[in-house]
Amino acid sequence: MFKVLFEDGDARVGELTLRSGVVKTPFFMPVSTKGSVKNLSPEQLRETGIECVIANSFVLSLRPGSELIKSHGGIHKFMNWDGGVFTDSGGFQAGSKDFLEEITDDGIVFKNPYTGKKELLSPEDAVRIQEEIGSDVAMVLDDMPSPLWPKKKIEVSVERTHAWAKRSIAAKKDNKQLLFGISQGGTHKDLRERSAKTINSLGFDGLGIGGLAIGETKKNMFAALDATLPFYDKDRVRYMMGLGSPLDIVDAVSRGVDCFDSVLPTKSARRGTIFTFGGVVHYKNNKYSKDFAPLEEGCDCYTCKNYTKAYFVHLLRVHENLGLTLATIHNLRFMQRLIEKIRDSIKQKKLFEFRDEFKKNYK
Amino acid sequence: MFKVLFEDGDARVGELTLRSGVVKTPFFMPVSTKGSVKNLSPEQLRETGIECVIANSFVLSLRPGSELIKSHGGIHKFMNWDGGVFTDSGGFQAGSKDFLEEITDDGIVFKNPYTGKKELLSPEDAVRIQEEIGSDVAMVLDDMPSPLWPKKKIEVSVERTHAWAKRSIAAKKDNKQLLFGISQGGTHKDLRERSAKTINSLGFDGLGIGGLAIGETKKNMFAALDATLPFYDKDRVRYMMGLGSPLDIVDAVSRGVDCFDSVLPTKSARRGTIFTFGGVVHYKNNKYSKDFAPLEEGCDCYTCKNYTKAYFVHLLRVHENLGLTLATIHNLRFMQRLIEKIRDSIKQKKLFEFRDEFKKNYK
Repeated sequence: MFKVLFEDGDARVGELTLRSGVVKTPFFMPVSTKGSVKNLSPEQLRETGIECVIANSFVLSLRPGSELIKSHGGIHKFMNWDGGVFTDSGGFQAGSKDFLEEITDDGIVFKNPYTGKKELLSPEDAVRIQEEIGSDVAMVLDDMPSPLWPKKKIEVSVERTHAWAKRSIAAKKDNKQLLFGISQGGTHKDLRERSAKTINSLGFDGLGIGGLAIGETKKNMFAALDATLPFYDKDRVRYMMGLGSPLDIVDAVSRGVDCFDSVLPTKSARRGTIFTFGGVVHYKNNKYSKDFAPLEEGCDCYTCKNYTKAYFVHLLRVHENLGLTLATIHNLRFMQRLIEKIRDSIKQKKLFEFRDEFKKNYK
Repeated sequence: MFKVLFEDGDARVGELTLRSGVVKTPFFMPVSTKGSVKNLSPEQLRETGIECVIANSFVLSLRPGSELIKSHGGIHKFMNWDGGVFTDSGGFQAGSKDFLEEITDDGIVFKNPYTGKKELLSPEDAVRIQEEIGSDVAMVLDDMPSPLWPKKKIEVSVERTHAWAKRSIAAKKDNKQLLFGISQGGTHKDLRERSAKTINSLGFDGLGIGGLAIGETKKNMFAALDATLPFYDKDRVRYMMGLGSPLDIVDAVSRGVDCFDSVLPTKSARRGTIFTFGGVVHYKNNKYSKDFAPLEEGCDCYTCKNYTKAYFVHLLRVHENLGLTLATIHNLRFMQRLIEKIRDSIKQKKLFEFRDEFKKNYK
């Protein structure tokens, strides 16, 4: 299901075969947490070149319910999106302070915000929910530690993550859905190594790296990544969860990561922050209100081809949602253009030149 | 510039030639008050079949400023919309309680919400602003009375409206922009007749009917319309301002009106109220949360072709803006389908049968 086609150092270009079609790697997925990439129609999303999105199975299980999506014919029909759909298990959300009651060996006990009741999300539940939702790729439920916890506590979470990973594989029924494992370990190299080896050994379709890009230093993040990747088989797809910073993506690809997701480009767009190859530009002021240039010279996105900075600033100032749509389109097209440049550089064995050039210009 | 092609009683099908292209009549315009039809891209709007929008020159003159739009190359380029653009003069907005300080023979004195300063909007200002904005059709500044005012006061507003209409024609410079007059008169037949005759005599490119659909009874509204239309030349286009109720539009067309605008379909959409040929349906409850049918059976809009009621309800419940987009697309396509059925019925001389049938089903 995963094929490496080109390599440049540890970086690779490949193809991941999902039941909905083939996706080129490396790729970046925007989030469609509640079943929609905020402010975009599927056609607008498709036009950015994005091939895959990631929805949140925990959030969707609360509303509208995974059974409803199943009886609707699955998430693709529900959302009217024929591209790839990953689902996160919800370990990240259910374990957040908005929902969490406690984590036990059974699973995550959370408070349902709609009923007020305590409920258990077990690893088996997470598999069942994602099979009902019908995503292309399901992620196992993991016990994600804070990197700030004492090492002893992180070690407990790592062992629990491994136990849950095994239970998830045992619970899997849908052979057309891929199931990815997730390793943990905070920023401890020995725990990361142990977790990578264990997750790698369990036969998952793809290999996730969890618990990073959540506030630790860049140095510690890349050290944890470097402690993980040598123990992940090269012939399986590697997914670093939650990474959306353009600079970090380039660095992670150069280490051998294939797949990313983050709220960053879409959330930034909603705050008037625009990604360009010269760095990010903030539009929450009037500096560009008389500027008739596109958001980024040379960009081929719908927004840049058809609108000016002046119109964009106007839409933001008068609170027209079209402004959010135009910003989201641009930022996702930026991510996709970055990914396309990364892929081309790998094919030409020039990723490291590209990385240096990109870093020099991106402020 | 206006050509009647088919007639059925007083109703007509025609063509209105604007500098941006030819528009079929009758037609309905959604509002793009601040330079965007809320929650739609121009392509999404175009796909509904809508050919014309109406922006508000007063609102746009406050932000981003009419000079800015002029230096941008006009409203069409600013908005990325190559269809027709009407502009309202702002009599309605500047004269609303949010802005109004006082109305004098000079014009409307309003408080600029961004600077707090008192400013005058004169009839000449309204013409200049709309010429700067570069719409296809400009509306004169009128002094719109409340239908609840004493007749003496309404008479003053009618005379002022006439004086302003003459000043507007004198101020006009752009020969490619059409300028429409507006008659007033509250619900008084004699004032309506006097106003219609005066406005008709001044040589405007099109003939507006103002001050209706603002809270008076239907009976009084249609009586005022009936007191106006006999004094409007048949060979000029007639625009009833602010009318958006589907039933009322059918009745107004049957009396000889060609053109309408209203916030109703788009504003209703944002409130989860969907127009269908069976009447309006409210989605702000969970009644349809397991209903996998489209919003309206037989509708050819993007929303109905691709999404279910269940998905739409879900989007509304979790506050995803895509829900507002889908609702707006459907409601505007509904208005356009209604207009297309009206045009076909007129061509077949069956408008009155259509009206009866439509009224029977529309609840």
